[in-house]
Amino acid sequence: MAAVHTPPVQTLIDELGRLPGIGPKSAQRIAFHLLKLSDTDANRLADAIREAKARVRFCDRCFNVAEADLCPICADERRDPSILCVVEESRDIIAIERTGEFRGRYHVLLGAMNPLEGIGPDQLKIRELLSRLGPEGVNEVVICTNPNTEGEVTAMYLARQLTPLGITVSRLASGLPVGGDLEYADELTLGRAFEGRTRVGG
Amino acid sequence: MAAVHTPPVQTLIDELGRLPGIGPKSAQRIAFHLLKLSDTDANRLADAIREAKARVRFCDRCFNVAEADLCPICADERRDPSILCVVEESRDIIAIERTGEFRGRYHVLLGAMNPLEGIGPDQLKIRELLSRLGPEGVNEVVICTNPNTEGEVTAMYLARQLTPLGITVSRLASGLPVGGDLEYADELTLGRAFEGRTRVGG
Repeated sequence: MAAVHTPPVQTLIDELGRLPGIGPKSAQRIAFHLLKLSDTDANRLADAIREAKARVRFCDRCFNVAEADLCPICADERRDPSILCVVEESRDIIAIERTGEFRGRYHVLLGAMNPLEGIGPDQLKIRELLSRLGPEGVNEVVICTNPNTEGEVTAMYLARQLTPLGITVSRLASGLPVGGDLEYADELTLGRAFEGRTRVGG
Repeated sequence: MAAVHTPPVQTLIDELGRLPGIGPKSAQRIAFHLLKLSDTDANRLADAIREAKARVRFCDRCFNVAEADLCPICADERRDPSILCVVEESRDIIAIERTGEFRGRYHVLLGAMNPLEGIGPDQLKIRELLSRLGPEGVNEVVICTNPNTEGEVTAMYLARQLTPLGITVSRLASGLPVGGDLEYADELTLGRAFEGRTRVGG
């Protein structure tokens, strides 16, 4: 006598369980929470997902999230085009902007290199990064990938690509806890790491 | 220069952050995960929420999740109507059914008493439980609320209501780890707890 959830509930649990950091038990808990909410409250989440997917796109230039061709930072004429900050994800930009230490532009890789999962340079926005350097007059790149294995591998790869082109390449300074994620750093630590960035390669 | 998320992204993060067990950082992580998915994949979750809310309701009799007036268990004529198992949530029924120890019907309270959060007997389906006893010929109630403070308070309250009515009231036996949640118990432990249920009050 195996009891199973009714199909719409099981589908909901399955879909929730696909989200990062949500295990089967959490998915079940969230599903039943949604079922107990009013239709209005539960459908607000469904609407928010549809709305975000419909309205949000990636910036044509830097792959930050955007609602137009360019993200607000790329569209801001006051940002210095000669210095680029390379990050893994859009959310890292929010963290760096909060420090107030950086006045240049960004480039979002949309991930980090991870050979075990088949994510190499071609799966990231690295070709697009290289093609920005000349037209935008970039002479410095600050690599702000996460201070973990994937982030370090990506940083090393980028440094090897960029230094032969005469670009000054730097990496966020120590101050970030090793093995952690950039987005969890507090503003002071991240700001200090930005000030003390160290040159890589060349 | 405070950087903020673009409004549809912020709305999505806010809505995700309302879910149980999802903090602000998890909400942000999940939101950006959804943005990177294809529209089809992301909208599957939105559809699953809408579909579940549209098709799933609560059983008229026991408040289990159902797709018709009655849930599959209440609609099953072979279930013994004289013994009721009272649980906090529908998901607890799944756990108990998996043990194969119980052939009666259920009653879902849709929560547990929690005076600090203003949840008293009137916020739970207790009046509905009492009104089932006569018409269905119930003579035994097994209280399967969670073995934590709220669950114990609810069990005590129910025992005080039920024993004067000549109902045999029992509570799940020891075997469940104290302070834990019923839904996380393994089948063997939960089955043994069911077999060794102890009488409460009267």
